Amino acid sequence: MTINGEQLIGASALSGTAPSFRAVNPATGEQFEPGFGTGTVEDVERACTLANEAFDTYRNTSLASRAAFLELIAQNIEGIGPLLIERAMQESGLPQARLEGERGRTVNQLRLFAKVVRDGRFLTTALDSALPQRTPPRPDIRLRKIGLGPVAVFGASNFPLAFSVAGGDTASALAAGCPVVVKAHGAHPGTSELVGKAVQAAVKAAGLPEGVFSMLHGDGRTIGQAPVAHPAIKAVGFTGSRQGGLALVRTAQARPEPIPVYAEMSSINPLFLLPGAMTERAVQIGTGFIDSLVLGSGQFCTNPGLVVALEGPELDTFRDAASTALEGKVGSTMLTPGIHSAFNNGVEKLGREPGVSLVARGQCGTTVCAGQAALFETDAANFLANPALEDEIFGSSSLIVRCASLAQFKQVAEHLDGQLTATIFLNESDRDAARALLPILERKAGRILVNGYPTGVEVSHAMVHGGPFPATSDSRTTSVGASAIDRFLRPVSYQDLPGWLLPEALQDANPLNLHRIKDGELVRG
Amino acid sequence: MTINGEQLIGASALSGTAPSFRAVNPATGEQFEPGFGTGTVEDVERACTLANEAFDTYRNTSLASRAAFLELIAQNIEGIGPLLIERAMQESGLPQARLEGERGRTVNQLRLFAKVVRDGRFLTTALDSALPQRTPPRPDIRLRKIGLGPVAVFGASNFPLAFSVAGGDTASALAAGCPVVVKAHGAHPGTSELVGKAVQAAVKAAGLPEGVFSMLHGDGRTIGQAPVAHPAIKAVGFTGSRQGGLALVRTAQARPEPIPVYAEMSSINPLFLLPGAMTERAVQIGTGFIDSLVLGSGQFCTNPGLVVALEGPELDTFRDAASTALEGKVGSTMLTPGIHSAFNNGVEKLGREPGVSLVARGQCGTTVCAGQAALFETDAANFLANPALEDEIFGSSSLIVRCASLAQFKQVAEHLDGQLTATIFLNESDRDAARALLPILERKAGRILVNGYPTGVEVSHAMVHGGPFPATSDSRTTSVGASAIDRFLRPVSYQDLPGWLLPEALQDANPLNLHRIKDGELVRG
Repeated sequence: MTINGEQLIGASALSGTAPSFRAVNPATGEQFEPGFGTGTVEDVERACTLANEAFDTYRNTSLASRAAFLELIAQNIEGIGPLLIERAMQESGLPQARLEGERGRTVNQLRLFAKVVRDGRFLTTALDSALPQRTPPRPDIRLRKIGLGPVAVFGASNFPLAFSVAGGDTASALAAGCPVVVKAHGAHPGTSELVGKAVQAAVKAAGLPEGVFSMLHGDGRTIGQAPVAHPAIKAVGFTGSRQGGLALVRTAQARPEPIPVYAEMSSINPLFLLPGAMTERAVQIGTGFIDSLVLGSGQFCTNPGLVVALEGPELDTFRDAASTALEGKVGSTMLTPGIHSAFNNGVEKLGREPGVSLVARGQCGTTVCAGQAALFETDAANFLANPALEDEIFGSSSLIVRCASLAQFKQVAEHLDGQLTATIFLNESDRDAARALLPILERKAGRILVNGYPTGVEVSHAMVHGGPFPATSDSRTTSVGASAIDRFLRPVSYQDLPGWLLPEALQDANPLNLHRIKDGELVRG
Repeated sequence: MTINGEQLIGASALSGTAPSFRAVNPATGEQFEPGFGTGTVEDVERACTLANEAFDTYRNTSLASRAAFLELIAQNIEGIGPLLIERAMQESGLPQARLEGERGRTVNQLRLFAKVVRDGRFLTTALDSALPQRTPPRPDIRLRKIGLGPVAVFGASNFPLAFSVAGGDTASALAAGCPVVVKAHGAHPGTSELVGKAVQAAVKAAGLPEGVFSMLHGDGRTIGQAPVAHPAIKAVGFTGSRQGGLALVRTAQARPEPIPVYAEMSSINPLFLLPGAMTERAVQIGTGFIDSLVLGSGQFCTNPGLVVALEGPELDTFRDAASTALEGKVGSTMLTPGIHSAFNNGVEKLGREPGVSLVARGQCGTTVCAGQAALFETDAANFLANPALEDEIFGSSSLIVRCASLAQFKQVAEHLDGQLTATIFLNESDRDAARALLPILERKAGRILVNGYPTGVEVSHAMVHGGPFPATSDSRTTSVGASAIDRFLRPVSYQDLPGWLLPEALQDANPLNLHRIKDGELVRG
């Protein structure tokens, strides 16, 4: 496989405009070949039209063949071999082991959704029997979910494989029976092309209509918005900045037919350190916190950007341990020059906020875009009074908020915006405090952790990677884990259809062997 | 029970501003006592604040006690006795039998949601086991859904009981664990007060925090918008006009924290008459169609406002049968003078559209606001060229679209906006045509019927009363049936929580005896 600087529109690979950008190695600042053109309005039109044409055929594929298609994509991605990892390393500055792990996550995710599709529970089939003797007679009513329609997916910078071209949004949309039009992230265009061709080859090998998958290059603010505005597109998946996410929401809402946008945006992932846990193991919590803070140069949606703790000697111990650990950490390369510079600005701005003082910094790294981690502190009164202290700084930066009392813990928790995660460190003696905090955190976050760190998002059935605004634009959903498929579905009910017209999932004989709700009771397949 | 012209704010009943409006009997134009004041900004503030304060307590009630609370509301509504029906008849012009049926529907709906709550399936509990030996170790992750928060509900005019103060939106929001702030519909304020007091009494008897339920009076465009803008409110349920629904959506989107709006708005509910069915029973279809069209003076969201049929002698037969039937129908009282006048304007406007001709009209009724039913026709080319022909006319008005071919059926279907329902009349000989039409209708409608009429929306497990925009503002949901509860829930995942901190629904011993997804497999309770 070679990288040609191409977009993928249905079965075609084409160059778009004359090459207008090249990938940059953030470790060295070096640009490398090939050049990439950006998509045109005609490219968007063609990709969306093909997706629309493919929808009815694709959504009516059997569960078995749709699952096999997802597995084939996974196999094709593995088949790219070392080139994929090499190119992703060059484009992202991320180390080999991380990217190999991420490739594993990406293909496992596709295989998880293949299982979800085969299982068929996502169809939420329900059957209500006719009651012809009732007054008035009750008709026969049956429900299943179908795909919303073609989905526009925006690749994220920080997971060039797992949240990008064939990442969670694409995998769950395809699983739901929705064709996908990807806007590739400009930070890893070559990686995107390689993965995109793996998907494209799977579409062809599976004998599916070419419009099931397309991938465009282009600036997010211009050509990136175009698919969101296109009438064929019925939903949007996005992971990135709050500004970027909200721009897509505005475009989607301004359409003649508004559509849902699933934007995973900003979160500072507070840790609440309860007194019992701190008395027992402040040093251990502090060093573990720094490991989580600097992981991947802090470029995770779930990076712990806020620490809430009680004033006192245990907090001093925690802070000393964290400082010592942090001062030993050498900054690693950030994803792009833009992210690196935004991180530096954010850290500088936070350091200048009144009442905020620097606790410690990590070591400068040796590469061009190395992020130098930073830890700050302030008190709760100051935090509560200054909304700027709640802004996400994308990278390894965190703020300790010193509270005078457990009552102030609750005040800080109530004050917080919506979050992807909230964490409580506790031991047995913290039962009352934890029980008082939990209901608040349930209202604020999509995932609540105890005695762990929020970085590391398991791809599984019970995972929620979501949360109230501004963590996401839709708190009712998750972008990671099996339930991510629910974002791209809507229910349809069928009244008195003859057997020959009923979808297989709803036929009396239950040929797909599904679990179904029959007159309100679960009947196993 | 007496009607005092009161609002209900938590446990209080109060008058709001000086009386500014009275209910009007649409059959006679007569106003009657008492006068009603409208809510003030302070009333909204207090209702929303109380709802917010009640939320954590209410959502953490046991499933059993929440279900019993819903059943108590049902019992209290029944306990109002004949006064409720009398007042609703006066305020709505609807006949006694219809309102008695609607009361039955309302209490059955509350009891259905009580069952849904006891069953607990709506919690969608999932448990992923820890894998401590894996590299990296997998934590223990468990998911359940919780309520979104306090919900603002807007009563609809056309179901003064079943879609109003204690209707489907309120029942499903309360079932989800969400306090409710109702904006009562100005067309039936006395009915609203009676039902509101039944809910208020149930809150008190169940020992729940008073903020679980409040009910305000006021103009939808001013005080009605205020709860939607209030930070305590986290979702909105609405049934009414497109204009009204879109205004709420705009307010909800403009908030610092945008919230979901479930607005059920406009639909013309097309019937597609396939040739085999028409050859067999054009007369029967035509007379049944008129019965559905004039039911409740056409004031149903699912009223059949469009008929798509092939040119030919069968269509003439259908038209003749429909005309004869329609000409025998005496117009019944519409809900309000405003609705009656909008209906007349809509009919007059449609009759003036180029290429549209009148087929027949019903008889004038004898009451002040009697709606005189109307049936028009046009050809497919004209229909496809003129978007105004797709506007909903709320009331008994319908348009026959004559098609030259089955290909034109598909064109008309593809051209349609989103609908609540779409119906196919068919027999065995129509298999191919029906199979060609079905995928299009699945994309356009929330419910697909065969050989039936769309009026009559069963409250059951498999019902979808929803559909793509503009039928609703959120095609992923239904406002009728058991799944309506899903609108007011969001998932939360719990990572490595000790048993003593875990919600009951997620504890190892499964004390609630729920069906749960364990490592991806369904485990029965």
